[in-house]
Amino acid sequence: MAVKTDTEVIIGGKVFTLSGYESEEYLQRVASYLNNKLAEYNRLEGFTRQPPARQNILMQLNIADDYFKARKQVALQEEELQTKEKELYDLKHELIATQMKLENAEKSLKSAQKELNDSSRKIVRLETELADRKEHGDRNKKE
Amino acid sequence: MAVKTDTEVIIGGKVFTLSGYESEEYLQRVASYLNNKLAEYNRLEGFTRQPPARQNILMQLNIADDYFKARKQVALQEEELQTKEKELYDLKHELIATQMKLENAEKSLKSAQKELNDSSRKIVRLETELADRKEHGDRNKKE
Repeated sequence: MAVKTDTEVIIGGKVFTLSGYESEEYLQRVASYLNNKLAEYNRLEGFTRQPPARQNILMQLNIADDYFKARKQVALQEEELQTKEKELYDLKHELIATQMKLENAEKSLKSAQKELNDSSRKIVRLETELADRKEHGDRNKKE
Repeated sequence: MAVKTDTEVIIGGKVFTLSGYESEEYLQRVASYLNNKLAEYNRLEGFTRQPPARQNILMQLNIADDYFKARKQVALQEEELQTKEKELYDLKHELIATQMKLENAEKSLKSAQKELNDSSRKIVRLETELADRKEHGDRNKKE
């Protein structure tokens, strides 16, 4: 089980003690993200002149905008994953069908080759017998 | 080109006029997300007793946490997409290799069947000739 810990973070130059289950490393990353955003805003002349309540809301909206954009990306990737899943499914089926056709073709080929061997042997036998007959017939004629 | 518009949103009971390129519908969705979060926090007894600066930082951290979680999901899906991409690539190659094997097997089968037909014809010819010879030989003996 995770242990609840206190972590001190500095946001906007002020120290805040956060109590929770998140790791210190994670909370510092989140704090650093917020400080970067705040620094960006403070570089805009108009921002610092806004009343604090409006500054807060602009920050919140800006973070929420990052969140909504990430969520949109999640949704798009979800669609992409489903498309790929469908493609994989179709390909697997096509592969199995092709493997079955290949197996059948190889079986037919093997049996055709066996028949060919039998035929070849039969041809040799018939040709030998015929050659014998011819010789025999010729001898008959000579006698 | 997008047109900059002014949109009024109500966040935490206060009206804010936002000027930007985002659609009104989008800004209202973001405002509604923030209001829900605020309402959740206000249900916690401890929250409203905090100084406003801390309330604000807690809100920011909470939204940023949503964002970081979504970003983690994006990274995980990115990995999953790459795995699927690799799987698709491998399957496509396997399918092409199997299709080529099938093509070759079907070609070999066709040529084996042609050879078999030729052999069968040759066997019939040889058997006919042999039967003729036998008859001829028998006639010779009778004569």
